[in-house]
Formats: sequence, structure tokens, C-alpha cells
Amino acid sequence: MRPEHTHVPALPPSPHADGNCRAVASVLARVGDKWSVLVIMMLIDGPVRFNELKRMIGGISQRMLTLTLRGLERDGLVTRTIFPTIPPRVDYELTDLGRGLAQPVQALGKWAFEHLPEIEGARTSFDARNGQG
Amino acid sequence: MRPEHTHVPALPPSPHADGNCRAVASVLARVGDKWSVLVIMMLIDGPVRFNELKRMIGGISQRMLTLTLRGLERDGLVTRTIFPTIPPRVDYELTDLGRGLAQPVQALGKWAFEHLPEIEGARTSFDARNGQG
Repeated sequence: MRPEHTHVPALPPSPHADGNCRAVASVLARVGDKWSVLVIMMLIDGPVRFNELKRMIGGISQRMLTLTLRGLERDGLVTRTIFPTIPPRVDYELTDLGRGLAQPVQALGKWAFEHLPEIEGARTSFDARNGQG
Repeated sequence: MRPEHTHVPALPPSPHADGNCRAVASVLARVGDKWSVLVIMMLIDGPVRFNELKRMIGGISQRMLTLTLRGLERDGLVTRTIFPTIPPRVDYELTDLGRGLAQPVQALGKWAFEHLPEIEGARTSFDARNGQG
């Protein structure tokens, strides 16, 4: 049992409930979407064609890849270029903004990867303690 | 129109389709969940009581806060301590693992906050171009 303590919040409560917070959440939601993160990672080294992306990211459907790319394009993180070849070729590329986001996303992915065993261990013992293990 | 290019992927495709990738995605999903991020942020400076958390995070329901805290506890990011006072007092605190996660999450939140105007601008012009503006 820990001793009593007095907690002093670091930040006033109001900014966390306002519209900016909601807007930041919508950006973070991109990061919580595994497909968006994988697409951003795949584009770090340069433009990639749609079909190549689909191949690189195993398990993604054509429709889901299209939706993911459209969301990233809408956020200004990715550009789409159509080359009028036969068949037409479509390339996707990170914008400067997208490359900027890739840095903290990579740091987070690295953390997640390194601490995966601890998190999975915690889940297993939690479930065991709570009768689901 | 950009010139032709040859793309050389930085990483082999296989690791991105396997179980580790799925597991990392489950960690990133925490970050995509705005309530989890807000709770982690609120706990950075030390333990906070349930009711205080609820007050600090405007707009969260009792049920959603309970579910969020339970998910964070299950992942080993947060501990829960009950003090047998009347009424009982429940404190939540980041674990070392949780404090570790808070760092890259803060970096990402900082990026999101700083680039919000660009992202919102991109969304507005995308929607205008696509007849939804």
C-alpha cells in the first residue's frame, strides 16, 4: 500500500476538452490504424506503385488499401500520381508533411516492437488474474 | 508529371505480414485511441484518482474511463491502487512501461499539434476538389 499523497495536476483541465484536442485525436487515430502506419513505413524510401504496395503489405485487400491511401491523401500526407501508360500506372509518395510524421511514428513503432514481450506478458497475467487465462 | 523511377524497397515484405506486425499494431491502436492517450498524458506527473481523472478529461463518461483504464492496466501501462477509506479511494499511476510509452506518444502528440493547421488545410482542399466542400 502506498502512502497518501497530494496530486498537483501539471496542466489545467480545460485545454484537454476543447476542439484542438479532438483534432489532435483525429491525427493520432491515423497512427492507431495499422494499415496507415504500414503504408507510411513502406513509402519512407520513395514512391511506390499501388500494386507493389499491395504486395509489400501482406493481407491488405484492394479496397482497404484504396481507402487507406485516400485517407492519407486527404490528410495531405501522401500524393497520388497517375502515369498515362497502358495499363495506367499509379504511384504514391509521401509529402514533406508525411515524411515529418514518419519520424515520430517510427520512434513509436520501435518502442512498441521493443516492449512487445512486456506488454504481452502483462496481458497474459491480467487475464489469468481476472479468470480469463 | 514526375520522371520514371525504380523503387527499391528498404525492407523485405515478409516481416510486415506476420504476427509481430499484428502485435505491434495492437500497441499502436492504444495510441490511436484518444482516451488512452489523454489518460496517459494526465498521469505523467504522478498518480491521479479516478474522479480527478474524470474531471481533468472533459467529455469522458464514467463507463468509458473505466474501460480505458482497464485496457491500460491489462497492457501493464497503468496500476490501480485501492485505499480502504470511506468512501474508498482509487488511484491510477503509470508503470515504468507506461512512462516509457509516454515519451514517444508525447513526441507524436507534439507533432500532431504543431501540424494540425496543415492537415486541416489539406482535408479542406481535398474535400473541395472531390466535391464535398
